[in-house]
Amino acid sequence: MTAATLTGPPWPAKFRAPKGARTRESILHVAVNLASLEGLQGLTIGRLAEELKMSKSGLFAHFGSKEELQLATVEMARQVFVEYVIHPALAEPEGVPRLWALCDRWVDHVESRVFAGGCFFTAASFEFDSRSGPVRDRIVDAMRTWLGILSEAVDRAQKCGHLKSGVNADQLAFEIYSLAIGSHWVHGLFGDRKAFSNVRTMILSRLRGLATSKCPRLPSQKVDRQRSLNRRPKQRS
Amino acid sequence: MTAATLTGPPWPAKFRAPKGARTRESILHVAVNLASLEGLQGLTIGRLAEELKMSKSGLFAHFGSKEELQLATVEMARQVFVEYVIHPALAEPEGVPRLWALCDRWVDHVESRVFAGGCFFTAASFEFDSRSGPVRDRIVDAMRTWLGILSEAVDRAQKCGHLKSGVNADQLAFEIYSLAIGSHWVHGLFGDRKAFSNVRTMILSRLRGLATSKCPRLPSQKVDRQRSLNRRPKQRS
Repeated sequence: MTAATLTGPPWPAKFRAPKGARTRESILHVAVNLASLEGLQGLTIGRLAEELKMSKSGLFAHFGSKEELQLATVEMARQVFVEYVIHPALAEPEGVPRLWALCDRWVDHVESRVFAGGCFFTAASFEFDSRSGPVRDRIVDAMRTWLGILSEAVDRAQKCGHLKSGVNADQLAFEIYSLAIGSHWVHGLFGDRKAFSNVRTMILSRLRGLATSKCPRLPSQKVDRQRSLNRRPKQRS
Repeated sequence: MTAATLTGPPWPAKFRAPKGARTRESILHVAVNLASLEGLQGLTIGRLAEELKMSKSGLFAHFGSKEELQLATVEMARQVFVEYVIHPALAEPEGVPRLWALCDRWVDHVESRVFAGGCFFTAASFEFDSRSGPVRDRIVDAMRTWLGILSEAVDRAQKCGHLKSGVNADQLAFEIYSLAIGSHWVHGLFGDRKAFSNVRTMILSRLRGLATSKCPRLPSQKVDRQRSLNRRPKQRS
């Protein structure tokens, strides 16, 4: 694996550094992808310096410690996630369209390999759930926010009259979350290329089952199959 | 964290080594718990020797390399999982009772901290999904077998006439799997003590929705609340 393989598209344009530049941002781009492939705990100044072919002292100028590097990496991953998943979804009309866009973009960010190793935050969650300290706290904070956004979107979809009023917003958000990480798991482990279209079908089916007659029409699976062509192949360490 | 905190109950009796003994089995007991807390990739001969207060050469007599130690650790975790989750469930009557027992024991093994860090295999899956090599292959093999057992149990429950015939066994197994790892995630990250009873309720509700009139009665949630008392508290590194 070379640094070049860790800096490709499709990150949102604002996070792409000029080729060859060794800015804090371009370093973190590689750090996020490396951590998504090899784990956040293995992300040391030494390992990153080796990957970037930089001196350790050069990296220390940006990050004073392993922990500082890990915190900056989590923060960069969070920003990319917000930009790629949350912002485009929030631009959709309130209610079920926005809720579905959140789910769809979330599945898409794994399918499109926005992070080279798949779902950065799911992997980091399971890696740090038995640890303590600021890195864990930052991951917990990001995940609590994300689950809250999903839950809020369910709640708004009910208030718009798109979903039945008896739906428990936190529970539905949890179910959607579980199906999505299940699909990441199946794809990551077994290389099951249908995992993403399958999980879209399951989430759509769940939403349709809870929808009222006022609910705008949800997309068909044909759209997803079309979109799933020309995906970035998974990189392996 | 000391080795003593990594060797407590509730492992099945056949895996408990005599106190103070440094058999291959007692070493692997600590190795599995350590890996479940700190990650399998961080499980080196040196790290384990430090935890056990043994010499590295003493450990090398048991395991010739880090990879051999990791493979033996995965194998031990697999055996414990089979003994704790699968064997007791297979003793239940075929059909929905056996399917439910598989789900219940699986949730229980995380709730009861059979592995100190929670769900050994879910964490190992996300840790190794972007890697290659024999350790990944062993994890994939174990997970494929487990998902197959769940799917087979759904299939048998249909053939017994307990579940509707239109149910897709692989899909329902995937949904159950996803909900379970979702509950591990919520509990591990947010310390949500209701995660386990909530996920039992969701799985039971899903099974009830697919059950025929021939399906034996499924348990109520009161049983779970009673059982969830006196659990082993989560250990942190």
